[in-house]
Amino acid sequence: MLKLVLLRHGQSEWNLENRFTGWTDVDLSEEGVKQAKHAGELLKKEGYSFDIGFTSLLKRSIKTLHYVLEEMDLLWIPEEKSWRLNERFYGALQGLNKEETIAKYGAEQVHKWRRDPHEHPPAVDRKDPRFPGNDPRYKGLTERELPLTENLSETMERVLPFWTETIMQAVRNHKKAIICAHGNSLRALIQYIDHLTDEEVTMLDIPLGIPWVYELDEDFNRIRHYYLE
Amino acid sequence: MLKLVLLRHGQSEWNLENRFTGWTDVDLSEEGVKQAKHAGELLKKEGYSFDIGFTSLLKRSIKTLHYVLEEMDLLWIPEEKSWRLNERFYGALQGLNKEETIAKYGAEQVHKWRRDPHEHPPAVDRKDPRFPGNDPRYKGLTERELPLTENLSETMERVLPFWTETIMQAVRNHKKAIICAHGNSLRALIQYIDHLTDEEVTMLDIPLGIPWVYELDEDFNRIRHYYLE
Repeated sequence: MLKLVLLRHGQSEWNLENRFTGWTDVDLSEEGVKQAKHAGELLKKEGYSFDIGFTSLLKRSIKTLHYVLEEMDLLWIPEEKSWRLNERFYGALQGLNKEETIAKYGAEQVHKWRRDPHEHPPAVDRKDPRFPGNDPRYKGLTERELPLTENLSETMERVLPFWTETIMQAVRNHKKAIICAHGNSLRALIQYIDHLTDEEVTMLDIPLGIPWVYELDEDFNRIRHYYLE
Repeated sequence: MLKLVLLRHGQSEWNLENRFTGWTDVDLSEEGVKQAKHAGELLKKEGYSFDIGFTSLLKRSIKTLHYVLEEMDLLWIPEEKSWRLNERFYGALQGLNKEETIAKYGAEQVHKWRRDPHEHPPAVDRKDPRFPGNDPRYKGLTERELPLTENLSETMERVLPFWTETIMQAVRNHKKAIICAHGNSLRALIQYIDHLTDEEVTMLDIPLGIPWVYELDEDFNRIRHYYLE
């Protein structure tokens, strides 16, 4: 049996302020730090251990992983970070308050942007400081990989290669892995593992800072999954 | 010109208690955390940036690296950890207070253990919890690589392959690197870079938490070096 732990980062300062975050590199809130440490304590108490950690290029996930590993006395394991595990890129919505956005564009449009897999939020232009091409951490990406906006379906597409080429390889070699990432990048993994439809996956709410354990057979079919709480 | 930053971890709880630490995984003291953050602030203020971080498998170095990178807003860069950057393995001296060890064995013997490159501290046996073969983080090491004790010369020997095979390759490819490690693993690097004799290198005291910058030519000859304070 293969085992895998998925963990959405702890609460960020913008989760708290109810703003669209996306690739904005917002820090954990105090509550988020507590959630991360608690997740680590819980995993330790339940006898979990890891051989490798995967995370995004965003500090709310990286720090969540570090707090978890520190609680488990596992800071020494290798970690691999990839932009492919980043949150969905929310384009020109990044930084806006969700209530204000609803007031401006209407609840229906905002709901579509959030849940319709093919609906694009308004794009940033290339001069916008929010465009990832202006951030040194994304200098290795091709023109095509640098998003101006991203619909849910595009997020899924760029997450999957990291799952199939990197994470699955590690898990297949019986490395015990933890993936610390974001609401939409984790949805992409879960949709793939669980063969969910677009509708099913957009209904899925992944709580902040709660380890989600997957038990898989050797062909990566789900045997069972459960939260550790 | 190639550039490289060496950083000895911040003060640990056992630096404070004046105990032989070696591979014991002692945490940073409060002062050590401050030193690490200060090093990060300083590097940021002076305009440094890094493409990759190297560190040991010991949390006092790993956490120092993380504090530095967080201050510099660089938590997202890749990091590579290796047992080869660990502190010298101090055998059965690990955990002993230095003053008490002097009272028991005499100042001359303790001085030899600390500074004579060929003098072995008393060994641990394989059942000792301090023997690295009993710690999961070293399960990838061969029988021959797992130390029972280590003289300074042996520390140098196991550090060097990581320098030549991994760090030098990265620096040669113009990756800006920071190496966050320990008194004796850093001495090994410095001895190699600066062609120091055994006597010269054992005289070298590397302060805790102060970035040491090396400027090298393309053949890795030192152009100059200096502390950032």
